[in-house]
Amino acid sequence: MKPTPYSAEILTVGNEIITGLVADTNSSVITRRLETLGIPVMRHVSVGDDAEEITNALKQALERVDCVILTGGLGPTHDDITKHVLARFFDSKLVPDDSVKRRIESIFKSRGMSAPQNAHTQAEVPEKATVLDNAKGTAPGLLFEQDGKRVYALPGVPLEAEHLLETHLVPHLENLGTGKVWHRILKTTGVPESLLWQEIGPVSQFEDFVKVASLPSLLGVRIRFTATGKDLAEATAQLDAAEKLLREKIDHHIFAVDDETMEGNLGEWFRSNQRTLAVAESCTGGLIGHRITNVSGSSEYFLEGAVTYSNSAKHTRLGVDPAWIETHGAVSEEVATAMAEGIREWAGSDFGLAVTGIAGPTGGTPHKPVGLTYIAVTGPHGTYCEKFRFHQDRVRNKERAAQAALNLLRLYLLDES
Amino acid sequence: MKPTPYSAEILTVGNEIITGLVADTNSSVITRRLETLGIPVMRHVSVGDDAEEITNALKQALERVDCVILTGGLGPTHDDITKHVLARFFDSKLVPDDSVKRRIESIFKSRGMSAPQNAHTQAEVPEKATVLDNAKGTAPGLLFEQDGKRVYALPGVPLEAEHLLETHLVPHLENLGTGKVWHRILKTTGVPESLLWQEIGPVSQFEDFVKVASLPSLLGVRIRFTATGKDLAEATAQLDAAEKLLREKIDHHIFAVDDETMEGNLGEWFRSNQRTLAVAESCTGGLIGHRITNVSGSSEYFLEGAVTYSNSAKHTRLGVDPAWIETHGAVSEEVATAMAEGIREWAGSDFGLAVTGIAGPTGGTPHKPVGLTYIAVTGPHGTYCEKFRFHQDRVRNKERAAQAALNLLRLYLLDES
Repeated sequence: MKPTPYSAEILTVGNEIITGLVADTNSSVITRRLETLGIPVMRHVSVGDDAEEITNALKQALERVDCVILTGGLGPTHDDITKHVLARFFDSKLVPDDSVKRRIESIFKSRGMSAPQNAHTQAEVPEKATVLDNAKGTAPGLLFEQDGKRVYALPGVPLEAEHLLETHLVPHLENLGTGKVWHRILKTTGVPESLLWQEIGPVSQFEDFVKVASLPSLLGVRIRFTATGKDLAEATAQLDAAEKLLREKIDHHIFAVDDETMEGNLGEWFRSNQRTLAVAESCTGGLIGHRITNVSGSSEYFLEGAVTYSNSAKHTRLGVDPAWIETHGAVSEEVATAMAEGIREWAGSDFGLAVTGIAGPTGGTPHKPVGLTYIAVTGPHGTYCEKFRFHQDRVRNKERAAQAALNLLRLYLLDES
Repeated sequence: MKPTPYSAEILTVGNEIITGLVADTNSSVITRRLETLGIPVMRHVSVGDDAEEITNALKQALERVDCVILTGGLGPTHDDITKHVLARFFDSKLVPDDSVKRRIESIFKSRGMSAPQNAHTQAEVPEKATVLDNAKGTAPGLLFEQDGKRVYALPGVPLEAEHLLETHLVPHLENLGTGKVWHRILKTTGVPESLLWQEIGPVSQFEDFVKVASLPSLLGVRIRFTATGKDLAEATAQLDAAEKLLREKIDHHIFAVDDETMEGNLGEWFRSNQRTLAVAESCTGGLIGHRITNVSGSSEYFLEGAVTYSNSAKHTRLGVDPAWIETHGAVSEEVATAMAEGIREWAGSDFGLAVTGIAGPTGGTPHKPVGLTYIAVTGPHGTYCEKFRFHQDRVRNKERAAQAALNLLRLYLLDES
């Protein structure tokens, strides 16, 4: 019989989560990190700031898994009760902790303030807990150990939770993982899931090497391979074999692997080829520029963006002939092409990318419906324009248009290379 | 003794959730909607596509609450097992359903395709389930009723889950809610939580009318009032009284109420005052334009955005004197001011907004550190510039800068009105 791997469960505490005010994002981040250590997460549970709910959920989790990671409810306000619940659960009284007190005082001092009264409450910790120093905030993390099981409590602020995860949990847990799996994610866009799998063929062809999951989303289909080799080398060989097979079928649809992004990989191309880019946006309103500039170092190749929302701006900023807009409409192949060529010329960049479309919900006509979008790319070897039609709401249509534009640029550069 | 209100729990099924590949957003949306019906959600639970895990979680949930809403695992692929698990749980065999079959065939037909083999599997439903017609996709929703309790199963695709929530669950459940509460959210930005509460004063002043929750996030602090009046009129009066009290203290920090957004309210001002806006962005890279154009009808007042990432573009597009950039640096009050005035002049808009900063992680110096940002607003009555310093990572610094810019514009227009 295969031994049960060391496993974890994530317990999120907070009225803001359980009343739907904010979505829980910590659980995903923590889960992904634990998976890399070979520790499967069996369950995510969220409860409100309620002593009985927290206690029950914690008790139940400890019956199922070896390690419970609790986030939230450690702050200084009156509804933050997690620390008190844990103190009672582990039959432990609260005592002042000098290192925590000094940390809090120094944080306030660095902001030119003296620590408020409730800061002293924050410096009290359950006697039986190990304090996990938190360099990013005033609430420390806590670790309880009992009967060979662990309970970690982390602040709910994502930045602080991630910091404690890396600085404390990962070093503690990295040798305990026994259910080690290795993932690789291949990201595609531009092809619906059913057609993509027609091109790929049967899932069974991969099953000698890996398990396969197919995950469609608004911006494309991600294909995840999971290998369970005896070590990294074996798993890497399995993942490589599966990736090679997939690329034989749909290489040109794959824009990124694992944590890579579309805009990051495009940036890599521009940097290493020492080429520059400028963008003209209408319906996407600046989203393409935002995505491109999310990449550190993008100022090396991204010269400028023009968000030409009005027809007048399309003329004055990009040189689009008003007569063309009159004749063909602002959302047309002719105008998209003129926008791309115009921004390239004005900016003096090697490549130009342009989008014009009707994001909706208003502005559509029978001839030019909501979601109709033209995207043009231009460069040293000419201009290419493609017509798209999106069927979501305004914000999602903008997101799809931006993704399609960056993908069209990627495909254009593939031909270029 | 107060009767226990009719309560619900949300159970999310999916390996993509439990392995951290995607965050669960359905639970928040469903929770918020149930709250408006007076049905509190006690717990969110996520498990993988595993028969034993799903069965245990479902059994435990039914011991705690009256209604379980399960999402995910209803699709056509091999790892979608929710329907089979539910059939076994409710001791019910799978039978073909003609209406579901016709729906699936018509969906494929409308795309010019014939239904694939696995479509027939999708048309089978557990005999004891009530089918919830899904106009947005191929997998129907399911309802099981047993011992006075309900189990709903919805597809995990957010668009489909939301559709079934509105068309089936809300009509079913709206008369069952007995724990009715009314919320109002006041959104503030620009002031840290501790200082905000110094301005507001003690929480106790609100407690005659409402419960208060304070929720800090990257882009500001939201204050949520909760009223438990006997009806809508009484609750509204309580919420109004609390809001009035809060506005007496911090009115100018509040940029939106409930579902309102910063950009939506700004748009309302520009539309009703028939004024126009243009934006010049450096470090935010287009994010401000993106947010402004997320508002339907923004083309009425948003003329254009210039993402002047290079110094050359700041000169050619906005008329910023290269000597100024040389003397003061691209990130300076002088350049921010010149950018705002430049975009207003070039676009011929009533107002101009400009941002220049160092998003990081590279590009900082001891004199001009990462996160340093200047924001300028200009209009008929002159130009105002403010200096900010943000301490997050690149993408979060961009988000904070965009929020601060829109807020500075809001405050400028407040003075204007």
